[in-house]
Amino acid sequence: MKKRGLLVVISGFAGSGKGTICKELMRQHDNYAFSVSATTRDPRPGEVDGVDYFFITKERFLEMIDAGELLEYAQYVSNYYGTPRTYVEQKLQEGKDVILEIECQGALQVKEMFPEAVLFFVMPPTVQEIYNRLKGRGTESEEVILKRMKRGQEEAEVIGRYDYLLVNDDLDETVRFLHETVNSARYATERNREFVESIKTGFVEFLKEHV
Amino acid sequence: MKKRGLLVVISGFAGSGKGTICKELMRQHDNYAFSVSATTRDPRPGEVDGVDYFFITKERFLEMIDAGELLEYAQYVSNYYGTPRTYVEQKLQEGKDVILEIECQGALQVKEMFPEAVLFFVMPPTVQEIYNRLKGRGTESEEVILKRMKRGQEEAEVIGRYDYLLVNDDLDETVRFLHETVNSARYATERNREFVESIKTGFVEFLKEHV
Repeated sequence: MKKRGLLVVISGFAGSGKGTICKELMRQHDNYAFSVSATTRDPRPGEVDGVDYFFITKERFLEMIDAGELLEYAQYVSNYYGTPRTYVEQKLQEGKDVILEIECQGALQVKEMFPEAVLFFVMPPTVQEIYNRLKGRGTESEEVILKRMKRGQEEAEVIGRYDYLLVNDDLDETVRFLHETVNSARYATERNREFVESIKTGFVEFLKEHV
Repeated sequence: MKKRGLLVVISGFAGSGKGTICKELMRQHDNYAFSVSATTRDPRPGEVDGVDYFFITKERFLEMIDAGELLEYAQYVSNYYGTPRTYVEQKLQEGKDVILEIECQGALQVKEMFPEAVLFFVMPPTVQEIYNRLKGRGTESEEVILKRMKRGQEEAEVIGRYDYLLVNDDLDETVRFLHETVNSARYATERNREFVESIKTGFVEFLKEHV
């Protein structure tokens, strides 16, 4: 019915595995395009410019804000993160479903601007499990993990404004569910107002001809 | 997350194939229970009481309305149609997803009472195709077909209040899509308010213990 792609927003608690879910989704299906964020923070070891992020200066970031070149942006500590608009618009136009893996603050900005966007929040089945996974990575101090848990508490306050919950117990299951839900969302009446109107008009015209 | 079944409402234009879709869905999956409607109209040849409908008298139907035993009901011409409440409640409680194949008037009543119900509207891709399918059945006069088309025009006015469109081009595809969408709907945040609250509480308790 609709040729334009869908905007798919994915957020989640630290350690929820949202990055892995996105990568696996992209690997399995070719209808998606992954939006790379811009950030002013320094690259971490192994991160590649243009793949993990566009690493840019604060000056350039502020310019992009002023020029309306960002779909959404947010500041964490002293760093900025944002979604360059051109890539997203272009891919949607091409009919690709664009994945934005972004934080809650940005996700809700996107939903306000694009009510037709589909928002997913990734989480383990329990709060304890969030802690266990962060602990299990063995890469962060207890202090950092507790900071992330406090951040999680703030994020939990806005989960209700997302469209779907993705309880990530099994990666394959979760990716399949995500893909199926995006396909379903395509046929929600709220995303097909024009088609619904065309059916109404179609009846008027048909009955004019036949009665 | 949620054990209670979902209420799945299916409506559609005459000739849209909604009956066949429901039968095929029931045949392929065992998570569904099909709600049999009660009606005061006479059985047509081949129709079985308790399978196609519960055929009851007008007096009994009016009694059921008064006693609140119907989930929804509607009157067409001089006949009543309605959904007995007990079966639906019982099956939902057992965790079954209950299919109501009902007309628009009843569907919207159900949505008002159960906002968590998922409403599907089945249609061919174009208005002309609705006519072609009715014509193709060869069982109804042109006059009856045009009456159905006028009824279709009225129904088209409320399609926008359904949750999803099911464009029935290919039966297997449509049934698969319907089943996947029901599964997706189960994880919509609006159907999981309690779970979302439990995550919020989980954080509060976790942080009370650990900080």
